[in-house]
Amino acid sequence: MNAEPSNVAATHGPVRIVGAGLLGASIGLGLSAQGVPVTLADASPTAQALARDVGAGAIARTEDAVPTLVVVAVPPDVAAQVVAAELRAHPDAVVTDVASVKSVILAELAAMASLDLSRYVGSHPMAGRERSGAGAASADLFVGRPWVITTREGMDPQALLAVRSLAVDLGAGPVQMTPAEHDDAVALVSHLPQLMASLTAGRLVEAPEPALGLAGQGLRDVTRIAASDPRLWSAILTGNAAAVGTHLRGVRDDLDGLLEALDRAAVDGPLALGAIAGMAGVISAGNDGAARIPGKHGGLRKRYSEVTVLVPDEPGELGRLFTEIGEIGVNIEDFQMEHATRQRVGMAIVSVIPASATTLETALEERGWRVVAP
Amino acid sequence: MNAEPSNVAATHGPVRIVGAGLLGASIGLGLSAQGVPVTLADASPTAQALARDVGAGAIARTEDAVPTLVVVAVPPDVAAQVVAAELRAHPDAVVTDVASVKSVILAELAAMASLDLSRYVGSHPMAGRERSGAGAASADLFVGRPWVITTREGMDPQALLAVRSLAVDLGAGPVQMTPAEHDDAVALVSHLPQLMASLTAGRLVEAPEPALGLAGQGLRDVTRIAASDPRLWSAILTGNAAAVGTHLRGVRDDLDGLLEALDRAAVDGPLALGAIAGMAGVISAGNDGAARIPGKHGGLRKRYSEVTVLVPDEPGELGRLFTEIGEIGVNIEDFQMEHATRQRVGMAIVSVIPASATTLETALEERGWRVVAP
Repeated sequence: MNAEPSNVAATHGPVRIVGAGLLGASIGLGLSAQGVPVTLADASPTAQALARDVGAGAIARTEDAVPTLVVVAVPPDVAAQVVAAELRAHPDAVVTDVASVKSVILAELAAMASLDLSRYVGSHPMAGRERSGAGAASADLFVGRPWVITTREGMDPQALLAVRSLAVDLGAGPVQMTPAEHDDAVALVSHLPQLMASLTAGRLVEAPEPALGLAGQGLRDVTRIAASDPRLWSAILTGNAAAVGTHLRGVRDDLDGLLEALDRAAVDGPLALGAIAGMAGVISAGNDGAARIPGKHGGLRKRYSEVTVLVPDEPGELGRLFTEIGEIGVNIEDFQMEHATRQRVGMAIVSVIPASATTLETALEERGWRVVAP
Repeated sequence: MNAEPSNVAATHGPVRIVGAGLLGASIGLGLSAQGVPVTLADASPTAQALARDVGAGAIARTEDAVPTLVVVAVPPDVAAQVVAAELRAHPDAVVTDVASVKSVILAELAAMASLDLSRYVGSHPMAGRERSGAGAASADLFVGRPWVITTREGMDPQALLAVRSLAVDLGAGPVQMTPAEHDDAVALVSHLPQLMASLTAGRLVEAPEPALGLAGQGLRDVTRIAASDPRLWSAILTGNAAAVGTHLRGVRDDLDGLLEALDRAAVDGPLALGAIAGMAGVISAGNDGAARIPGKHGGLRKRYSEVTVLVPDEPGELGRLFTEIGEIGVNIEDFQMEHATRQRVGMAIVSVIPASATTLETALEERGWRVVAP
């Protein structure tokens, strides 16, 4: 995204963004950087001023030029009201929202009298950060992420095109789905994992300290997203209640089967009738499901070779490792750090293409690194 | 671990390892490297020979010197039988096992007649890899990991000391607990997260392809360990059925509360009585639980500043980034890679101490990297 006015500015007329949080301000930053005139409105004057100060656009005024596109970037529980107000206030503009639930917003809009919904296209950029607000905004937030554009009958094809252009101009990949398909998909790949992480982490509240001392990378991975914001997530989850409920009920049924098998094993011993099969069924299904998650660039999950190197936790050591891997000339496909407890050493797990693994291992050992065999 | 015979060799007499898989072979490798005489026995002659070939020790023979320590490294469902046989065969040796469940093994042993259990000390090194077998073994497998040593009345203090020495000599940190404390702890921090990851991934088996295309880092993290071995995990879970059942029942109760709140929201809308509170309660409890997981080196989770850099997915780019961070002279505390879908770009999230963040951002930008604001 360069700062010169580009053909993007020519495509979009003035864009009005309502809601100056992380998403609204990031969209404003990305469009402003391409020379598109952007105005920003937020119920909070402070949020509005912060977004302006980070360069996301000018503060909206009544005398503003008529927008051709309005982006509503407010929480899902107020999105429909704001979309409706914008459709009425700007009778020629395309209006989109970027809330993470779609059917409930459309249903609320459909229930309102005398609204021209042909100009409304619900969308959802699959991007975010742990921090919120315009202070965390970035013109690059959407680069390489999917941006769902919801489709339905009666929608103006030009409106759809305008919202697709918005996604593409911000570096995202547009994905068209119906609102119901979207809601079901995010219930499964986003809302359900959030709840499972939260449920797992919730069990740790009362855990004895020594038990927590045994925590490894597995627990850390499963619970990483449990640190999410309760207020935002409550609105998302209740706004997609039916779809989330369907998937969570599936989990509950599997979980009840597990509990039955565990109870048998607890009473009759580990080899109790059906206990092993009950466990193995759930773990095997998990194997199959995990294998379906696409890897980098939407392709099948690639198999890389992992080279594990012990790295003393001292300033510069990890930097030195990467400097030397750069010198050795092997490309790093992926990287993970495992932290050791109780010792000042970490394990750097470097993924490389299988053909490079031996080269890298040998070269690192020659340079004095401790490579974990084999 | 250097290769010279050390005082470790003097502390341990001959060590006999039964079970030549990942753990047994890794223990053999670690001890052999320190000059301790190690013999290996495995029901599979192939596994036994492979462990010998990787340098884990000599194949056990009847004319072997009398061992002072026997390490039983077989699956949990056969551990008690093997421990009993070893206690009988070697009436002066200390016998330990390294299975990941402890109470059930002790109970099986206690039920056997005429066994001298004072010489038995159950233990559990909290180490593993995704791959299994002696081929994946490493003398460094236990470095920096906790190694639980279970204690109970009637245990010979010298036997306890011998197993503590084993853990320390292999680089692990010994942690003493009763078998029940161990089983409850691992049910919570290891077995429950495994099941939650498997249950989440299991829901993906029937998912439509486009939904999987929206998967982000959250889903990948929650389901990473879902790729685990069903056979091994079935034995672990049924061997710790009571403790796992207790924690899983806690999850089920929370989950039922969630389902009730979701049902209300699905019927009466997102603002249905109690729906928001039901969601927020679970997410908030997850916040609290996740905050209790110790970070690096067993301390409280440190707060680092994150610097996010866009990295083109081309050979050498990630290496070049780390080379340059090394040149800039900033220490990397942690590192994470987020992969973008549909575009050949990744986000490298570099954690540094807050005081270094601005320096790093400025220096990287000067060198032409795209740093995601702020």
